[in-house]
Amino acid sequence: MTSAETGDSGLLAPGWTGSAAARATGDTAFLQALLDAEAALTRAQAALGLAPEEAARAVTGAADADRFDARALAEEARAGGNPVIPLVGALTRAVGEEHGPYVHRGATSQDIMDTALMLVAVRALDPVLADLERTQRAFARLAAAHRDTALPGRTLTQHAVPTTFGLKAAGWRVLVLDARDRTTAVRDTLPAQLGGAAGTLAVFGAYGAADPTALPAAYARELGLRAPELPWHTLRTPVADLAGCLAFTAGALGKAAVDVLTLSRTEIAEVAEGSGGGSSAMPHKSNPVRSTLIVAAARRAPQLAATLYGSLVAEDERPAGAWHAEWEPLRDLLRLVGGAARDAAELAEGLRARPDAMRANLDLTGGAVVSERLSAELAPVLGRARAKELLTRLAAEGRPLAEAPELADADLDPTHYTGSAGALTDRALERR
Amino acid sequence: MTSAETGDSGLLAPGWTGSAAARATGDTAFLQALLDAEAALTRAQAALGLAPEEAARAVTGAADADRFDARALAEEARAGGNPVIPLVGALTRAVGEEHGPYVHRGATSQDIMDTALMLVAVRALDPVLADLERTQRAFARLAAAHRDTALPGRTLTQHAVPTTFGLKAAGWRVLVLDARDRTTAVRDTLPAQLGGAAGTLAVFGAYGAADPTALPAAYARELGLRAPELPWHTLRTPVADLAGCLAFTAGALGKAAVDVLTLSRTEIAEVAEGSGGGSSAMPHKSNPVRSTLIVAAARRAPQLAATLYGSLVAEDERPAGAWHAEWEPLRDLLRLVGGAARDAAELAEGLRARPDAMRANLDLTGGAVVSERLSAELAPVLGRARAKELLTRLAAEGRPLAEAPELADADLDPTHYTGSAGALTDRALERR
Amino acid sequence: MTSAETGDSGLLAPGWTGSAAARATGDTAFLQALLDAEAALTRAQAALGLAPEEAARAVTGAADADRFDARALAEEARAGGNPVIPLVGALTRAVGEEHGPYVHRGATSQDIMDTALMLVAVRALDPVLADLERTQRAFARLAAAHRDTALPGRTLTQHAVPTTFGLKAAGWRVLVLDARDRTTAVRDTLPAQLGGAAGTLAVFGAYGAADPTALPAAYARELGLRAPELPWHTLRTPVADLAGCLAFTAGALGKAAVDVLTLSRTEIAEVAEGSGGGSSAMPHKSNPVRSTLIVAAARRAPQLAATLYGSLVAEDERPAGAWHAEWEPLRDLLRLVGGAARDAAELAEGLRARPDAMRANLDLTGGAVVSERLSAELAPVLGRARAKELLTRLAAEGRPLAEAPELADADLDPTHYTGSAGALTDRALERR
Amino acid sequence: MTSAETGDSGLLAPGWTGSAAARATGDTAFLQALLDAEAALTRAQAALGLAPEEAARAVTGAADADRFDARALAEEARAGGNPVIPLVGALTRAVGEEHGPYVHRGATSQDIMDTALMLVAVRALDPVLADLERTQRAFARLAAAHRDTALPGRTLTQHAVPTTFGLKAAGWRVLVLDARDRTTAVRDTLPAQLGGAAGTLAVFGAYGAADPTALPAAYARELGLRAPELPWHTLRTPVADLAGCLAFTAGALGKAAVDVLTLSRTEIAEVAEGSGGGSSAMPHKSNPVRSTLIVAAARRAPQLAATLYGSLVAEDERPAGAWHAEWEPLRDLLRLVGGAARDAAELAEGLRARPDAMRANLDLTGGAVVSERLSAELAPVLGRARAKELLTRLAAEGRPLAEAPELADADLDPTHYTGSAGALTDRALERR
Repeated sequence: MTSAETGDSGLLAPGWTGSAAARATGDTAFLQALLDAEAALTRAQAALGLAPEEAARAVTGAADADRFDARALAEEARAGGNPVIPLVGALTRAVGEEHGPYVHRGATSQDIMDTALMLVAVRALDPVLADLERTQRAFARLAAAHRDTALPGRTLTQHAVPTTFGLKAAGWRVLVLDARDRTTAVRDTLPAQLGGAAGTLAVFGAYGAADPTALPAAYARELGLRAPELPWHTLRTPVADLAGCLAFTAGALGKAAVDVLTLSRTEIAEVAEGSGGGSSAMPHKSNPVRSTLIVAAARRAPQLAATLYGSLVAEDERPAGAWHAEWEPLRDLLRLVGGAARDAAELAEGLRARPDAMRANLDLTGGAVVSERLSAELAPVLGRARAKELLTRLAAEGRPLAEAPELADADLDPTHYTGSAGALTDRALERR
Repeated sequence: MTSAETGDSGLLAPGWTGSAAARATGDTAFLQALLDAEAALTRAQAALGLAPEEAARAVTGAADADRFDARALAEEARAGGNPVIPLVGALTRAVGEEHGPYVHRGATSQDIMDTALMLVAVRALDPVLADLERTQRAFARLAAAHRDTALPGRTLTQHAVPTTFGLKAAGWRVLVLDARDRTTAVRDTLPAQLGGAAGTLAVFGAYGAADPTALPAAYARELGLRAPELPWHTLRTPVADLAGCLAFTAGALGKAAVDVLTLSRTEIAEVAEGSGGGSSAMPHKSNPVRSTLIVAAARRAPQLAATLYGSLVAEDERPAGAWHAEWEPLRDLLRLVGGAARDAAELAEGLRARPDAMRANLDLTGGAVVSERLSAELAPVLGRARAKELLTRLAAEGRPLAEAPELADADLDPTHYTGSAGALTDRALERR
Repeated sequence: MTSAETGDSGLLAPGWTGSAAARATGDTAFLQALLDAEAALTRAQAALGLAPEEAARAVTGAADADRFDARALAEEARAGGNPVIPLVGALTRAVGEEHGPYVHRGATSQDIMDTALMLVAVRALDPVLADLERTQRAFARLAAAHRDTALPGRTLTQHAVPTTFGLKAAGWRVLVLDARDRTTAVRDTLPAQLGGAAGTLAVFGAYGAADPTALPAAYARELGLRAPELPWHTLRTPVADLAGCLAFTAGALGKAAVDVLTLSRTEIAEVAEGSGGGSSAMPHKSNPVRSTLIVAAARRAPQLAATLYGSLVAEDERPAGAWHAEWEPLRDLLRLVGGAARDAAELAEGLRARPDAMRANLDLTGGAVVSERLSAELAPVLGRARAKELLTRLAAEGRPLAEAPELADADLDPTHYTGSAGALTDRALERR
Repeated sequence: MTSAETGDSGLLAPGWTGSAAARATGDTAFLQALLDAEAALTRAQAALGLAPEEAARAVTGAADADRFDARALAEEARAGGNPVIPLVGALTRAVGEEHGPYVHRGATSQDIMDTALMLVAVRALDPVLADLERTQRAFARLAAAHRDTALPGRTLTQHAVPTTFGLKAAGWRVLVLDARDRTTAVRDTLPAQLGGAAGTLAVFGAYGAADPTALPAAYARELGLRAPELPWHTLRTPVADLAGCLAFTAGALGKAAVDVLTLSRTEIAEVAEGSGGGSSAMPHKSNPVRSTLIVAAARRAPQLAATLYGSLVAEDERPAGAWHAEWEPLRDLLRLVGGAARDAAELAEGLRARPDAMRANLDLTGGAVVSERLSAELAPVLGRARAKELLTRLAAEGRPLAEAPELADADLDPTHYTGSAGALTDRALERR
């Protein structure tokens, strides 16, 4: 069986295949990040006078993923349990005899793996943030355009009182902004990892460093990552922070998507995705595919995050299992959120609102959708108990409220009962 | 079956029973929070001229959990699916005919439930933060006292190179500070909830409010909570933020606990809990019970958080299930973290380090624990390959390295090979 | 703060409060199960001649939960990390000086805790199975009554082709039967636990047993549980099996519930719960509360099961945390499923189908709901490509298909296109 | 960026890369399963006279994964949300004009996807079961060989009483057998999926089938899968059953692995993996890599299973998200368990027990490891209270018990206090 026969190419992943996040998280991208970490390590040592500049240039030049065979490294990784061990061998050979000794010098496998995970996370989050920006802008436009478009507010699946499509879209946007803010904050704190075998930086002293504690910062500078407070081999705050912001983002996008799914139902039809997915057998179908895939991501993300939170309980100076259990779930989260953000941007930019259907649906309950208002307004006139009794009776009979003589003068127009929806929308749109 | 026969009293929960967080989250405390929310609502309306001051005083006076029967309310809650519906009836009756109409006026059940959840969260987090403070201080003392106490660094269960107990304790403290910072930040943003039936504040207009959007802020002020950006009935950022910081805190404490469990093992015996738990049958046993219970909490918290993250996908203006699925898991998380923080404080304050055992364990590998250093130091002398070959051969033979003639002059003292552990500890302790 | 102030009475749990499963899993019921285990242990020893019959009678007589203070035991449980330790002391005192030494003789705390968990599980599953039986019968009646009642089949939220309400109900019933079969199978295998301090039964030899391995079976007989293959202190198959069947049952019921939620929507209105929940502010509302609470349970159960599956990884002869992390999640699962089964029985027995609405909804797409059939039937006449092009064009135009001259002779009646729904329903109903 | 640059080749997955389960679950294998399902569908129709035999042969001949581009299909899958839609187009073209119309005739995408998932599951489970068989045999050999090898039983990390390595290994084997039995049972019930657009088989009638309900059974026969009771598009018992048995298997193997991790610790050293993983920097290290990777899988599996259990709540005739959320987690579970079973077989077959270390560790507590026995034996002599007081005092003093005059005649040999461990081992080994 050849390499092509076992490698994954996204066949089961229409949600994230082909996205920028997918490219940033593939095995090749990960391999490059591992190499970037190795090169930065040698450069940082050169910057501190612990390695020759030529060695730094040699390692940097050799650190090109195209020169290595990811599949072969993957298979060799079984023996020691991580891909850095075989990669160091391959990179050392590629660098050659003279500068080879400066490859990976003083580092432990986890220094390189963790740093690569952080690099991949930063690189995958950039397109996520760009797509969140597109999404929030599109929702802002929808909110502004439909500030006063009334539709039924629905609670526990039933019409409650009117709201506006503008307020719904403004709410979706608030969640996107919350996701953006949390994700940006986490991205900006992701640290490089450098501690050596047990996190003491001890061997760098043996290699002649006057102050080994200067090395992590130099290394982080080379990589554009934050300098770590301490080696964090078993202090997994960065991974947990990523878990949290990614689970949040998936769920935040899932809220808009599940609303679109509901409002797209054949019987409701208040919105439609810009270009629905087709069906080979049923020519009439137009499925809300973007929303479907976002919801699918949002169903998976929390459990992936749970695995990462669970790995906080990492014994000793390097745990036997908790660390290894992070790699794929973290990548899966980045991919799912990357795909969901792409789909959300397309969803938001293409979404078509159907005010006529919204208006028609408001009339489905024969005025009962404003019974709250009537209840409030009739109470001073009829007394609270009689008012309620009247409205309950009319609702039970299923007759249009307009036919009731007691309501002859009442304002039954649901579009007049959207309360502060407009003002709330305006206020929410002020947030940048 | 009487109330006493079905009510829970913590029999299955040695981890959190009797803690301050338990008291802050019990059904009585929750009932009080619901009543506090109702009273604040009427007071806020009075403050804006929408209700008489007497009504506000009457509701506030009646809003005492001792006057209501939590069990009866719980049973009545089945019909409508939440306890606010029967509570409003009971509170209205308690307030009396004149001011009764001002009870719950304009609110929806979720306004009260969500607000109560936030109140309970704030009240439960205060003792959590106090216990985190005790914990970090105790870890700081341990780190300072054992800044230079060497012990074996362990990776994948095996001795790697030496580290110090000070650096371990400093790392535990960093996680506690991370937990404190995240939890404090979340606590300070928890908002009150007020939106009315579908989040538009519409009925407050029907009740005469000139600007209903002023009401949520007034209500929040009464409660000491943040004013909401928008009604968040289905914009569940506050709940997700709590999920994240609580799962993080459980895991952060779990890291220290799992290390204590390992270091407490009979064969390792480098630390002991202040007062271990006994056994009825085995008089000699002293179990690390505090660590055990913390680890148990850390095993459960991530999945509870996952359920809360999953509830972000909340359809419509009030979801049919996602909201109801939040109540118990959020309370469970507060309790588990509350109990774990209490146990962590006791653990940290009582932990006994045993430097003699640490020193003895460093010698178990006959010097191999410093082979990294020898490898670095011998390489320039013997050549890299011969140096490694020598050390591998010695390790395979299992002989003490001191017996090898090639290492006659080598410094094999493991306590001399703790690298920057001291400096890293000092730096970490500067954080406040 | 008194006991009443912190004990839970179900205020946050309208889904399971007051159910038979709640009664079977409360702290009092759990305390009784612990006592039942202790009494059975002494009786089993008496049966094998290892203890006097009088001691067995004395312990059995004293083993009454009403005589013990669950709250006090809960608080004392903190020290050793489980409630058996203080309970043994209290029970020994209650039994008195003469027979006290036969209390808990030879057992470890986990023997009693695990056995009690199994007893509680069996006792909680009995009403669950009874409610599943009610549920499947009610779904069977609905399926038979509506064998030929057509309604729109919906895929990805859109009308696809017609199906029948009978087939939907038959499908719900299949899941209930699957849940019943899995739950029954698990219940019938739940074992007693008896191994002594480290699972070797060693101390029973010291107490004079000729063949200590006979004791677990005798003990299991006293309890009506299965005899264990081995002591299973860290072989947690029974707990994992419970996790699996409970998570399955919650999800199986959740499928019917989520369908009811959809079909209950104001715009769809094809079914209604027997007695919907009301709203204080909106007299017209009738919420699908039973379905809502079932769905809420189904959202939580998988993560609770995940925690239990995670506890399979239980180190040594008794793990430090994995075991303790099982108790509350297992009880929570039993409660959630117990409540969901009760709600499902009420839901199924009370559900009202509205064939008129189903018929009306079938017409919403103007015949497109049978476009699959037309596509198949027109292909031989017009050619496959032209047939599809025609139907796609008509769908895009949104015109009723009946107006298209090419379809003048076509059978556009959706109720004629339910395929094998009736036959499939009949076959499914044959399962008992 | 080329295909090679984004495809995964297992770099982050040393746990499952290169395993038989990995090959059975790769995109190419999945593509082949989709094609196998399509070919079986046409053959089944031919068998019932609904399609020409030539068409069946043509489709079967064209259904070769090597003739299709998985990556291109993956990208096209975005539009409709699943890969079957583009695959049907590509396969129809490959089959040619004459027989092309018989490709996918009457099926819906989900019929093919679900069937392919079941085929892949069966194909991946076969090597899993073979590896479980290797594992149980190796554990049986260890149990028999070490039936009477005593080592310290450990509870809550502390020495409790002696047990035997034979009983430990026998327990590991019981869990493997439990996993084998559950997995075999599930594998043998996995059904084919065939229902058409909404599960009514309606279009097969339009294509001329006299009894469309005969078709699913014919189709299942072609595939070697079970005939479905009903179309199970939203009755997800098979997926949930897989989730359960896979999560169980991962955890069952995790128990043995976590024990090996503990017993491998440098200080304990009672076992060693056959060939430990090395370290580039520390020549002496031999890490328990197989156990580490098994534990990593066991940490992830429960949450993946939770996602699958969550997808039981699948609305309508095809859900918008719940179904899509199953594909990758189910594959991930098959891979993780496939890799863990491979590692477990290697672990079990290579594990080296070190009876000398076990014996030495038994002496670490100076006899306290048999204090339970002494407590039982001294009680009749000294009285229960005085016996316990004596032993507690000796334990507190940390003196070897042999030095206490009261214990001059006591049998303090820990190897004499293994109770029924041997008999229990014998009995457990009788299970086949």
